[in-house]
Amino acid sequence: MKKWINENVVLIVGLGLMGGSYARGLKKLGYRVNAIDSNPDSIEYALSQGWIDAGTDAPTKEFIGQADAVIFALYPKKLMEWIEQYQDAFQPGIYISDVTGIKGSIVYDIQKNLRKDVEYIPAHPIAGREKSGVQYADPSVFHDANYIITPTEQNTKEAVRWCEQLARLLGFRTVTVMSPEEHDEMIGYVSQLTHCIAVSLMTCKDIEHLCDYTGDSFRDLTRIANINDEMWSELFLMNKEALLCQMEGFIREITDLKEMIANEEKEEIRKKMRLSTKRREAFDR
Amino acid sequence: MKKWINENVVLIVGLGLMGGSYARGLKKLGYRVNAIDSNPDSIEYALSQGWIDAGTDAPTKEFIGQADAVIFALYPKKLMEWIEQYQDAFQPGIYISDVTGIKGSIVYDIQKNLRKDVEYIPAHPIAGREKSGVQYADPSVFHDANYIITPTEQNTKEAVRWCEQLARLLGFRTVTVMSPEEHDEMIGYVSQLTHCIAVSLMTCKDIEHLCDYTGDSFRDLTRIANINDEMWSELFLMNKEALLCQMEGFIREITDLKEMIANEEKEEIRKKMRLSTKRREAFDR
Repeated sequence: MKKWINENVVLIVGLGLMGGSYARGLKKLGYRVNAIDSNPDSIEYALSQGWIDAGTDAPTKEFIGQADAVIFALYPKKLMEWIEQYQDAFQPGIYISDVTGIKGSIVYDIQKNLRKDVEYIPAHPIAGREKSGVQYADPSVFHDANYIITPTEQNTKEAVRWCEQLARLLGFRTVTVMSPEEHDEMIGYVSQLTHCIAVSLMTCKDIEHLCDYTGDSFRDLTRIANINDEMWSELFLMNKEALLCQMEGFIREITDLKEMIANEEKEEIRKKMRLSTKRREAFDR
Repeated sequence: MKKWINENVVLIVGLGLMGGSYARGLKKLGYRVNAIDSNPDSIEYALSQGWIDAGTDAPTKEFIGQADAVIFALYPKKLMEWIEQYQDAFQPGIYISDVTGIKGSIVYDIQKNLRKDVEYIPAHPIAGREKSGVQYADPSVFHDANYIITPTEQNTKEAVRWCEQLARLLGFRTVTVMSPEEHDEMIGYVSQLTHCIAVSLMTCKDIEHLCDYTGDSFRDLTRIANINDEMWSELFLMNKEALLCQMEGFIREITDLKEMIANEEKEEIRKKMRLSTKRREAFDR
């Protein structure tokens, strides 16, 4: 399969918030959508909503072999295990892709261990919600969002184009191609560090009736403190070096600001604020 | 004046975002609203919008003397200077209040230097926007927001009740009474620390085309990185000790989390995430 053709069967592996959002989005576009999830309730729910055409918690070779393309929405380690266990069932010549939030620590391993007649093109949709579970699936989270493709030297131009087209079909606004390493540094900053900050802000002080004293700023900064601990702890540890580097940079910066306040260096503080204002205005749409 | 009576003349001193929002809110409620601002354009704009009944950038004794109540929406130092310069013009027996975001470093000084026949009852509405200027004034920011009154031993119960009634009239949801010191600790945490975090997150790394890689989490955490440097640097320095203490607590906490990640203490990381999730859910409305 080298193009997205409406008759294609797309298999979603992992039917949670993201997998479910892909399923709903692709179904709406006219594709036949099959799904696999270890939880039969998730499959049943998606079937009852008409979000998938068929699904199972016990995939057969035949079921997997129907797929003209596969999108993985599993946690990183499960993704690698799944491919190892089931790759023999893939139709020859298909593309497979994913939604995983870390790249360097999985992409090369997967490509090395994958059958040579199947191409894995790694992708990361920068979209989501602070809820988990297929019941919260909603393809509108992709609208106007960012999408990153992280090919290696093993990937073909055709697969990159195919993956970009998937993103466009689903409504993503900006599609960027970069290396797995660049991705991990970037995501360590814009996503993982922000989650570390939100969690730390929420846990550093215990206040009764907190909601009686907060304004929008505190609510905004802690929205993502409501966090899926299983998924995010795995993502943090699988991107450990890049994340630690970003955390160090941030801790250095806020410690600098603290010193400026301690020394009452008003002009320096204002300079920093003007820089943050300028940068925030520039990227705000 | 011991009650909010519709015929009352309320004087707003400082017609920016907050002063303007008070003016619009009070005007809608039927009060006569006068305003003073050093910028004649702000006065002219509010007059043209019908948000105030009269205004001036050069207040006379007579103009100030019309007020049955005064709300100050000035930066802290200007507030103290203004009262010192103009307090002789106040009508005897009135209440004056404010919107200042720090309390301990101004409240006692103002009360000490104020005429004994005028009562200053300190207040802090936890509301605002990341924009400044009267043109962004909007009393709907008060709807469902929090309001803190910080009386001292000098204040009467009547003044506290009067101030609470003002908050209720303007649509605030929760009104809390606490000491200036408790206020400053709380605000150091929920407001000032969050602004320090947002600024530091925005300034700690310089990335071209940043908006092509960000998701909602980064956008939420940096919304307030667009900051009024004049006002916030003054607020930070006037609440220096309390803010430094909150910054230290947060830096300690995120450094702990960094160590856990470095040491791959997955269970400890997950425990912290579950705590942050529980706390965030509890205060989320």
